[in-house]
Amino acid sequence: MAADGGGEPDHLAGERATAQFDVDGMKVAWAGSRHAVEVADRMARLVASDPVFRKDTRTMLSRKELFKDTLKKAAHAWKRIVELRLTEEEANLLRLYVDQPGYVDLHWGMFVPAIKGQGTEEQQKKWLPMAYKFQIIGCYAQTELGHGSNVQGLETTATFDPSTDEFVMHSPTLTSSKWWPGGLGKASTHAVVYARLITEGKDYGIHGFIVQLRSLDDHSPLPGVTLGDIGGKFGSGAYNSMDNGVLRFDHVRIPRDQMLMRLSQVTREGKYVHSDVPKQLLYGTMVYVRQTIVADASKALSRAVCIAVRYSAIRKQFGSQDGGPETQVLNYKTQQSRLFPLLASAYAYRFVGQWLKWLYTDVNQKLEAKDYSTLPEAHACTAGLKSVTTSATADAIEECRKLCGGHGYLNSSGLPELFAVYVPACTYEGDNAVLLLQVARFLMKTVSQVAAGKQPVGTIAYMGNIQHLMQCKSAVNTAEDWLNPAAIKEVFEARALRMAVNCAQNISKAPSQEEGFSELSPDLLEAAVAHVQLIIVTKFIEKLQEDIPGPGVKEQLQKLCSIYALHLLHKHLGDFLSTGCVTARQGALANELLGKLYAQVRPNAVALVDAFDYTDHYLGSVLGRYDGDVYPALYEEAWKDPLNETVVPDGYQEHLRPLLKQQLKLSRL
Amino acid sequence: MAADGGGEPDHLAGERATAQFDVDGMKVAWAGSRHAVEVADRMARLVASDPVFRKDTRTMLSRKELFKDTLKKAAHAWKRIVELRLTEEEANLLRLYVDQPGYVDLHWGMFVPAIKGQGTEEQQKKWLPMAYKFQIIGCYAQTELGHGSNVQGLETTATFDPSTDEFVMHSPTLTSSKWWPGGLGKASTHAVVYARLITEGKDYGIHGFIVQLRSLDDHSPLPGVTLGDIGGKFGSGAYNSMDNGVLRFDHVRIPRDQMLMRLSQVTREGKYVHSDVPKQLLYGTMVYVRQTIVADASKALSRAVCIAVRYSAIRKQFGSQDGGPETQVLNYKTQQSRLFPLLASAYAYRFVGQWLKWLYTDVNQKLEAKDYSTLPEAHACTAGLKSVTTSATADAIEECRKLCGGHGYLNSSGLPELFAVYVPACTYEGDNAVLLLQVARFLMKTVSQVAAGKQPVGTIAYMGNIQHLMQCKSAVNTAEDWLNPAAIKEVFEARALRMAVNCAQNISKAPSQEEGFSELSPDLLEAAVAHVQLIIVTKFIEKLQEDIPGPGVKEQLQKLCSIYALHLLHKHLGDFLSTGCVTARQGALANELLGKLYAQVRPNAVALVDAFDYTDHYLGSVLGRYDGDVYPALYEEAWKDPLNETVVPDGYQEHLRPLLKQQLKLSRL
Repeated sequence: MAADGGGEPDHLAGERATAQFDVDGMKVAWAGSRHAVEVADRMARLVASDPVFRKDTRTMLSRKELFKDTLKKAAHAWKRIVELRLTEEEANLLRLYVDQPGYVDLHWGMFVPAIKGQGTEEQQKKWLPMAYKFQIIGCYAQTELGHGSNVQGLETTATFDPSTDEFVMHSPTLTSSKWWPGGLGKASTHAVVYARLITEGKDYGIHGFIVQLRSLDDHSPLPGVTLGDIGGKFGSGAYNSMDNGVLRFDHVRIPRDQMLMRLSQVTREGKYVHSDVPKQLLYGTMVYVRQTIVADASKALSRAVCIAVRYSAIRKQFGSQDGGPETQVLNYKTQQSRLFPLLASAYAYRFVGQWLKWLYTDVNQKLEAKDYSTLPEAHACTAGLKSVTTSATADAIEECRKLCGGHGYLNSSGLPELFAVYVPACTYEGDNAVLLLQVARFLMKTVSQVAAGKQPVGTIAYMGNIQHLMQCKSAVNTAEDWLNPAAIKEVFEARALRMAVNCAQNISKAPSQEEGFSELSPDLLEAAVAHVQLIIVTKFIEKLQEDIPGPGVKEQLQKLCSIYALHLLHKHLGDFLSTGCVTARQGALANELLGKLYAQVRPNAVALVDAFDYTDHYLGSVLGRYDGDVYPALYEEAWKDPLNETVVPDGYQEHLRPLLKQQLKLSRL
Repeated sequence: MAADGGGEPDHLAGERATAQFDVDGMKVAWAGSRHAVEVADRMARLVASDPVFRKDTRTMLSRKELFKDTLKKAAHAWKRIVELRLTEEEANLLRLYVDQPGYVDLHWGMFVPAIKGQGTEEQQKKWLPMAYKFQIIGCYAQTELGHGSNVQGLETTATFDPSTDEFVMHSPTLTSSKWWPGGLGKASTHAVVYARLITEGKDYGIHGFIVQLRSLDDHSPLPGVTLGDIGGKFGSGAYNSMDNGVLRFDHVRIPRDQMLMRLSQVTREGKYVHSDVPKQLLYGTMVYVRQTIVADASKALSRAVCIAVRYSAIRKQFGSQDGGPETQVLNYKTQQSRLFPLLASAYAYRFVGQWLKWLYTDVNQKLEAKDYSTLPEAHACTAGLKSVTTSATADAIEECRKLCGGHGYLNSSGLPELFAVYVPACTYEGDNAVLLLQVARFLMKTVSQVAAGKQPVGTIAYMGNIQHLMQCKSAVNTAEDWLNPAAIKEVFEARALRMAVNCAQNISKAPSQEEGFSELSPDLLEAAVAHVQLIIVTKFIEKLQEDIPGPGVKEQLQKLCSIYALHLLHKHLGDFLSTGCVTARQGALANELLGKLYAQVRPNAVALVDAFDYTDHYLGSVLGRYDGDVYPALYEEAWKDPLNETVVPDGYQEHLRPLLKQQLKLSRL
């Protein structure tokens, strides 16, 4: 996709001319299909060409202006979706390219799925049509001021009152205030609220309830409901467009049939009964949500990398004698060694995300067939991928910002907002450290099952190869030997398995399993990361075994796959050496090959980020402009700042002039 | 220092009771002296108790409001400084605790020192008194839109016109626009401008000139001068209080005597002549500035760590059966293993900063005695320390934010702003990657000098021990053996030297020295980091050889020193293993000891951050409150957001109600 404008000279034309592959083919590989390229392109242009969706001054808006702007964009997007009769796929893409967090995300992403997944057929019939038409706006109220990751610790109560056939929703403590739900603060009329179900004097733990929060007449909070926004968040613009909210209940009554009753119910008499729907069905949703988070990681990372690569090709520094042209920053090995692994990671996450989409379908099919055998593996795998890809992406966006030098610090570079809006992904839907410990727990279980002779499947199948992997030594003897995917896979498998087995052995020496697990948890985190990195490497390698059309496309991806794997090997060399998977010499050979691969990627770098197919609107970065005409744009952008409305600043008369004129009124002391 | 308020219950009292050392003694060790504690404490309270210096709603201000607030605070601070007849030490501390970047920083930190360092005595006599009284406000205009690190590439010209005895300042291209100088955009009346000096048709390279920018009558830009702010930057609040500016000259004339002429001059006839003042004198300033940056790193890091440690002691999660109290997050090994190395780093940077202060004095004494022999070493050492401490601090602030869970993402946690305001330190005063390459170049030179038999001194003295360090093997045999500082020092020295020698050997295989250096630059960065980490470890160890009064104080610092060194050993295990400095088993022993040390630090953690002696005002964090009463404060803070001014949000009538009422006006299609 070209820049939104046209006709201007392309300062990156020279870079584009050196590409050794078919960019169009790469777009298809990235997007997943020709159809996906086409529809994404169409929606992106639709958004980019619509003045309502402008976002170039977003970071300058006050909180209230920004929120109002979000309401406006959400309504306008909905209008366009209805007018143009967009498909669900198109509508989702349109919202993606609008690129401004808002209540709509939670309405479609959490409220509707919660009712679909946990509501009875009757409940779905009642609530979903209203939600689909936006007659109600819903959010997902789980997290509390004092309780995040530990859902079982939530304090909000829903006490059944058989005398009126109602639940009484109540916030018994300050820490039980609902806190963080997006869309709750100002926009939502309804929420799915998670609370301790109490009936007949007994606490049955956490259940979901549909609760109306605001009047449908005038949007005022209903009696007993306290609502507000929880205040400003990281960055300007960024997630401040979202009304993350606080909610307190003072004995608010809702009809009994607003408990989400698919899995369990309270009868008219107040009896708590389970339905025959298996609990495991809920896991499908979790796999779905985490799959989208991994896909989002590749989007955010690729945006940052696209900006940094293009600007590194424009920016020049040092290397000239006598005032001649300086060297493009992208030519420096240090720049390449920091940036190209991130470029490779963007592709790696994209492909593992595509595979997760398949996994979700697979899990659902098995769930419907009441086959729950692969659930633990799917759960561990998605939890781990969520954790590793989001942590790495957050770090990578900031690294891309630094790789743009000082100008990356300007809002007009787009990178500060991209970072600030992205980082919560490390915390929401499972804190990344907590998730890795879940993966580790699963790995420890698998190790003991393997020891007991059970054959693991899926992403842990490699652990069945324990005999070989515990004693193998890499046969790599030249730098080029590392180009062999089998050589890569073997050492990543051996490293992951040996780290897991080491942990298991050390845990077994502790007084108790739990104590050992707790003491060794820092090591367990590292073992989990090793396992997850193996999954990403493996899925990249498997992708390359598919047919990938387009001249040179597969060749470029092979280089990126090698870079992704070998930069991890270099970064975590301590793991590989201490577990005896590779020798110091083999590690040095990997490093040597990395340098050669960077040189090979260099002429393709700009084309490799062009293949992401982002409009200038979506990128939102002066530094990442498609045409590379960075400096005039930076200069122009500066004058938009409100501080430049006057030449002499507001405050001069009161605070600068008296200082300069030695007329500050001093107190007599 | 206690919280600003008083009389309230202390939720962290239990934590404070378990401390095994004298907090007061630790305050002295941290601050450097009893006097330093006392004066810092007095200035911090002065600021905290003054309503003009409030900053609790800073992130909610618009850019214009924020800038006006900065002008107000700067004028008020100056008023207090004059009224109270504060010493320079007191005034600097007062400004530190006001904690809001503004033009004053550049006036005192760059403009005045530039005139002092580069101006003749006559020039100093003319300009400094005006600057000292704020009759003029000055900034430092070096960086240009297209030119940062490479000062020699600057394009602004200062052409001498002998017919009028003036220099003509001119911006010949868009990329020659001055861009970034703090205080330039709106506040400064004058600037030291760096430009290519051209006389008699010849370009003599970059020189400094004092240029008036704005009228002293009405603050309007002088003819031919274009001035503005370069626009919003990372974060809300943060560095947006600063008017980083853009400046263009259209043939602006200044008298010849406004060239800074201490080192070289242009005569009335236009002859360019060097004075007899040695160029090396300027290096003293660079050492000074970088020393303050390292000191600032320990301040920023310690603030973040203080917030994260206190909140981790308040925040509870999991670990309870049947609704009993959950476990303090600080008790989790994963939290400790991420947080305590950062606590140790704060102390490590503090002590290396104190040593750098000494080094600055030492360098200056030698300069005055015309002994330039230690300059290259001092330069490399300060460049390296600036790079390593600022990079690690930026990462650490973000890690502390993540360690506070979701609430760390709220502006009221103080951490988003602390991160956003801190990160430019990685780029200004020398981009961190560029600086490390300078260190590496120095290391390569030293290796070859050592090979030629020269005995290195100062922070590279260890390289003289090449015989031993190239072949030694660590004798560590138990986890506790790693408590021995000599054991630590040996492996850090061996690692640093071997990495440098490896690089030197690989460079020598290249067709040319320069090509080799360029090809190997990613490895050289790593070698430079290893060298700098050794310096920090060594200075911490040396600090512990001093007398450190107070029961238990030295014991705690010894533990922190071990944690600092061993967490680096663990993190960079690949370096230590691949260079053969330690074995995999010794690496595992180090890790084992780390776990034990974390357990020993745990009961002292809160007291160790209390010793930083920060007021709640300076910390600026609801999560880091001294009294630990976090949740009511978070709740209260939320309601200050402008979005909460009304219950029904602005925009409801226009953009929400029509949506909910199905009254969006659709276009006919």
